[in-house]
Amino acid sequence: MSQSVTPGSVGGPARDEVLERYLDENAERRLESYKALLRIPSISGIPAHAPDCRRAAEFAAAELRAAGMEHVDVSETGGHPVVYADWLHAPGRPTVLVYAHYDVQPADPFDLWESPPFEPIVKDGKMLARGASDCKCHVSMHTRAIEALIATRKALPVNLKVIFEGEEESASLHLDAWLEANKERLEADFAVISDTGFFEGNLPAVTIGLRGLAYLQLNVTSSTVDLHSGVYGGAVDNPANALCQIVAALKGPDGVVRVPGFYDDVVPLSPADRKAFADLPWNDDEYRDSLGVTALHGEPGFTTLERTGARPTLDVNGIWGGFEGEGTKTIIPAHAHAKISCRLVANQDPARIFSLVADYIARVAPKTVRVTVDDLSGGRPSLIPIDNPAAQAAARALEATFGRAPLYIREGGSVPVCASIESILGQPVVMLGFAPADGRFHAPNEWMWMSNFETGIRTIARFWDEVSKLTFGQP
Amino acid sequence: MSQSVTPGSVGGPARDEVLERYLDENAERRLESYKALLRIPSISGIPAHAPDCRRAAEFAAAELRAAGMEHVDVSETGGHPVVYADWLHAPGRPTVLVYAHYDVQPADPFDLWESPPFEPIVKDGKMLARGASDCKCHVSMHTRAIEALIATRKALPVNLKVIFEGEEESASLHLDAWLEANKERLEADFAVISDTGFFEGNLPAVTIGLRGLAYLQLNVTSSTVDLHSGVYGGAVDNPANALCQIVAALKGPDGVVRVPGFYDDVVPLSPADRKAFADLPWNDDEYRDSLGVTALHGEPGFTTLERTGARPTLDVNGIWGGFEGEGTKTIIPAHAHAKISCRLVANQDPARIFSLVADYIARVAPKTVRVTVDDLSGGRPSLIPIDNPAAQAAARALEATFGRAPLYIREGGSVPVCASIESILGQPVVMLGFAPADGRFHAPNEWMWMSNFETGIRTIARFWDEVSKLTFGQP
Repeated sequence: MSQSVTPGSVGGPARDEVLERYLDENAERRLESYKALLRIPSISGIPAHAPDCRRAAEFAAAELRAAGMEHVDVSETGGHPVVYADWLHAPGRPTVLVYAHYDVQPADPFDLWESPPFEPIVKDGKMLARGASDCKCHVSMHTRAIEALIATRKALPVNLKVIFEGEEESASLHLDAWLEANKERLEADFAVISDTGFFEGNLPAVTIGLRGLAYLQLNVTSSTVDLHSGVYGGAVDNPANALCQIVAALKGPDGVVRVPGFYDDVVPLSPADRKAFADLPWNDDEYRDSLGVTALHGEPGFTTLERTGARPTLDVNGIWGGFEGEGTKTIIPAHAHAKISCRLVANQDPARIFSLVADYIARVAPKTVRVTVDDLSGGRPSLIPIDNPAAQAAARALEATFGRAPLYIREGGSVPVCASIESILGQPVVMLGFAPADGRFHAPNEWMWMSNFETGIRTIARFWDEVSKLTFGQP
Repeated sequence: MSQSVTPGSVGGPARDEVLERYLDENAERRLESYKALLRIPSISGIPAHAPDCRRAAEFAAAELRAAGMEHVDVSETGGHPVVYADWLHAPGRPTVLVYAHYDVQPADPFDLWESPPFEPIVKDGKMLARGASDCKCHVSMHTRAIEALIATRKALPVNLKVIFEGEEESASLHLDAWLEANKERLEADFAVISDTGFFEGNLPAVTIGLRGLAYLQLNVTSSTVDLHSGVYGGAVDNPANALCQIVAALKGPDGVVRVPGFYDDVVPLSPADRKAFADLPWNDDEYRDSLGVTALHGEPGFTTLERTGARPTLDVNGIWGGFEGEGTKTIIPAHAHAKISCRLVANQDPARIFSLVADYIARVAPKTVRVTVDDLSGGRPSLIPIDNPAAQAAARALEATFGRAPLYIREGGSVPVCASIESILGQPVVMLGFAPADGRFHAPNEWMWMSNFETGIRTIARFWDEVSKLTFGQP
């Protein structure tokens, strides 16, 4: 990149009044389209929802086509399809690849939702639905920004290529192969991934770091059937007790992962990194109270933001075995299971972490039970420079629309496609997302600020105007 | 008791040919009645099955009435009813209180049953159904022995009082108060509890020891909702990880319970006790293979039979929290739970053990989560002398019908009513049961030998003849 920009400087274009008026006039129709997308239960991790994923892809493709995009393609991957579309009529201007995903997490436990997860409603300025913030808002916002620009100017300020993925919430199993196979039509000067959010307090932010993921399932089995705990208790090992011993061995009560080698590849925090974290507006007590926990918890020697942004974790995501019903049942369960995932940071490798954890489990597991470990998914972590010109263009667009310079943050979540685009397509990645920090992604009552949705569409349009001024060394 | 009998000697009455013929002629009807009782899903631990428990009680009461018993009463307890009946026309003869229970354990997981748990079928000489061996067989067998005796002799050889309980599988919550309130009408020279079984290899046995129970539920909670494990992982403690740490702290991988004071009241095994255990026919390898486990496991320094008969345990009966579905979900669960029970031996007290475990949990639980412990149920352990005259009468009846002297065993399971009858009614207790040692009580595919069912009825009838010869000091 040859363009150099002063970080945080505002140099956005004048407000486009025609565009603004178009957006004002079409708010109602835009809301209905967003809701229609949210109504499709496109849960990629649950095989029974595969038809819904395809339906969401077809819906997103139709909307892109209507907005004026070309070469719209619901492209097969071997799993859930990727939606591709482009508009390439800005010769001499930069080409940008846009990424978002149309799939969502499972919605259980259903009884904790205020309203059904796939019946979106707007309440107190919030859109309440599974996928509202993670990440159907971004699918909708990008489509609407494109629509408004083409409708009012008959052109986009840059060349755009858009991909909406359908497997982000289930480890993007087929994406890498698809990116590899579509390398040529995906060529661009840089990529924009919209699957992140604002900082706590709804402060505009550009995300510079993302954590990776290594997700496994631990299975402990013993007898062929559940056994009477009175008759057999004391004679045989108990898979649920053994499971607890194994899980307890993986991470200490201090939050430090005990798996040998686990931290070996972690990039240590520099004094400058630590200062950047310390400069972010933050209050541990408010954060703790907002979550309803008695105390925050994690690796000693690191702040909360350092722990969630720059340190790896190991968490049980689910655990089960034996009798869960009301009342009592006196059995030694035949088997017990845990879903366990590690959030990874640069430069940890998911495959290596899976091996380390699986090997350690094999070492600490009692020999009186049978233990297997399934590799359920993985994704690489990511970290990008703050002074990237495209990131700075995004910052200017955010400041011009939201009225304040964005923060530069590291998010604890994983967007494995970020590392994939970097390594497979060789494109620098800017992460620009508008979800609220407390949007309950993956949890009941997921929500999105409708104000961010609206202002975000305007930010995206300004971003393309800003990008149109950049010059890249090689197209 | 004034009667003295040489242990193991055979002095049974001559075979009652009239009785035998009656039993032979009524086998089909008897089988249908047993099946009808098994069809009623009288699961006492699941509130929704309360009407089924009452239905089972009414059924058992009607059968006792038809058999010739008097004062038949489905007696309210505040929970599931107790069935009471008596026949008191043998002046000068002993009075015996008979106990069995008509309630059963839950039947899940249903998919592991060869045939539906409440649709009894006989296959390869086995009755397959929930409750077949624990303990509806005994309800049916006692009723049929009474019927046959009264039908052929117009009288019973002893005075009999029968109680069939409906809450044995859910901690007999209301039984003690009911026994207290019915003390007078339950007066007897001794009690017979039929809720035990034969030794491995279907060897006739009289049970002299039973373990007690302390059952609790451990609840660990943290945030108000499930949290995204990427966004919040590293910031807060994980209730499922914390649960595992607590459970792992309760019992070591060596099978030794780590709760301070847990073993304080355990009656140590004498050299004679250890010899009695060592004399029982037993093969660890066969036992291990029959259970499908890789190895047996438990407290070092004790044999398998000592561990299941004379040592206490701590087992997880169920564990759950977070995402259990297919695929992946990246959450920190808001809460996690475990059902945990301890089998107790003489002279451990369930209330004291509950306190010790709960106190220890409070001590070892991380302060970064909220922990509660619910007391779900408890029952005292039991141990009785081998040379008890009534036990010896049972032994003679067993030998006369099954053709070999019974073994004297300690069962690992709990029949808390045993301690209740001893302490509240002041009656010595003989435990005479006919269930197969490997009858899969509390597990899928519970079954009962139909041969034991038939021979057991004849044993019970002979037992009453044997008891009729005993003289008790005070009626």
